[in-house]
Amino acid sequence: MNVLIVHCHPEPHSFNAALTEVAVDTLAAQGHDVTLADLYAEGFDPVERPDHYIHRHDTDVFLPLNEQRHAFDNKGLSADVAREIERLEDADLVIVQFPLWWHAQPAMLKGWFDRVMVYGGLYSGSRRYDRGHFRGKRALCSVTTGSPQAAFGPFGRGGDIATLMWPTHCSLYYLGFDVLTPQLTYGVQGGGLSYQDDASFRAYLKSAKTDWQTRLDSVDEERPIPFTGWRDWDEHGVLKAGHPLRWRA
Amino acid sequence: MNVLIVHCHPEPHSFNAALTEVAVDTLAAQGHDVTLADLYAEGFDPVERPDHYIHRHDTDVFLPLNEQRHAFDNKGLSADVAREIERLEDADLVIVQFPLWWHAQPAMLKGWFDRVMVYGGLYSGSRRYDRGHFRGKRALCSVTTGSPQAAFGPFGRGGDIATLMWPTHCSLYYLGFDVLTPQLTYGVQGGGLSYQDDASFRAYLKSAKTDWQTRLDSVDEERPIPFTGWRDWDEHGVLKAGHPLRWRA
Repeated sequence: MNVLIVHCHPEPHSFNAALTEVAVDTLAAQGHDVTLADLYAEGFDPVERPDHYIHRHDTDVFLPLNEQRHAFDNKGLSADVAREIERLEDADLVIVQFPLWWHAQPAMLKGWFDRVMVYGGLYSGSRRYDRGHFRGKRALCSVTTGSPQAAFGPFGRGGDIATLMWPTHCSLYYLGFDVLTPQLTYGVQGGGLSYQDDASFRAYLKSAKTDWQTRLDSVDEERPIPFTGWRDWDEHGVLKAGHPLRWRA
Repeated sequence: MNVLIVHCHPEPHSFNAALTEVAVDTLAAQGHDVTLADLYAEGFDPVERPDHYIHRHDTDVFLPLNEQRHAFDNKGLSADVAREIERLEDADLVIVQFPLWWHAQPAMLKGWFDRVMVYGGLYSGSRRYDRGHFRGKRALCSVTTGSPQAAFGPFGRGGDIATLMWPTHCSLYYLGFDVLTPQLTYGVQGGGLSYQDDASFRAYLKSAKTDWQTRLDSVDEERPIPFTGWRDWDEHGVLKAGHPLRWRA
């Protein structure tokens, strides 16, 4: 299996970095080919803007999707985006490692979606969801949070983690990925070391690493999160009348 | 009233820019003081990283929250962040205008949260939610989407827009803002001009501008979205047993 790990944290000695190291080591020891995309280390530019397009489709008005399609079709994508797409094409499993900042991905990672997932190349109106470009590949988010687990439960003030993960999971499924249950590590203050004393922090890091390693040992066998698909929707993209999931209404 | 409009779109002639122009004109005509933070035009850097902190709290390990607190306490925040904070402090109403890209804010805007909403300065463990720094101020997201409205309904394949807005609304409430219902303009392809023919596009833009202007005429009188608060939660930040909102369990 080819595994791509997209790692997003500014500190090389962070909790997130330790989890990525575990993933690299565990998967390599199993004989998988592991590629690491360390976005901060590589200085990835997350801002979608005109400068990235040398040969513009339209120099009067900057419409990102039109420029993406034009650049993809004419092999004019910037080098960093082309490299990320190549990495994705090679991968069977994509692991995305990041800290939850402000209830979502850090800007660096959000921009990886904005810039790399190019219209025309990696999706189009008819090539999305279960007909998406990356169907057959799997994706898994490994996420650390600052607040403890209770705050991110269904009645927690942090805002139910399943809901906070929804936009990212939607994006991955939109691209065709089978999305695995996220790996959640709660209560990692500051996205790096903890406010706790060192001994309890080290013990927590050790247990988080063990949990992650144990899970990765059998990640091949996991069932993805179920999503509805094209055959469930009507012509407006809405669940068909009588679909069993409409019971919520 | 002092109004801050945080505008995030790379194209000055975009649909988003037209909506921001309407907001500036409408609110100014009512006699409000309007400040525009045009993130792309100002070249805002959305990446939280060590370079932004000249006088580091800890030069060995980069822990963003610790550096934020240290820089805030020692007046060492970078000039762009300090300016954004000043704008926020002056505002009674904050309007955030952006296109929904990959089910969330563009990276540029996400990084505005990551970098500007500094720990220690704008929030702390005890200064959050309805005890948040910006309590008494209001915030309103005005968002364009590429897909049409049906796809973003509760049973739409785009993923219920209320859920997609949840992380951003959580962040605003976390900071103490009263969050108003978002202004949603659907079916704006490419975040800018439309794939539709020009006449129907211009008609749609006109109606979207009218809707927005009409709403802004009486935005003072709107009731914010209800959130639970400190008196609803137990010591773990979870809705208290017997709270009426626990009926979902």
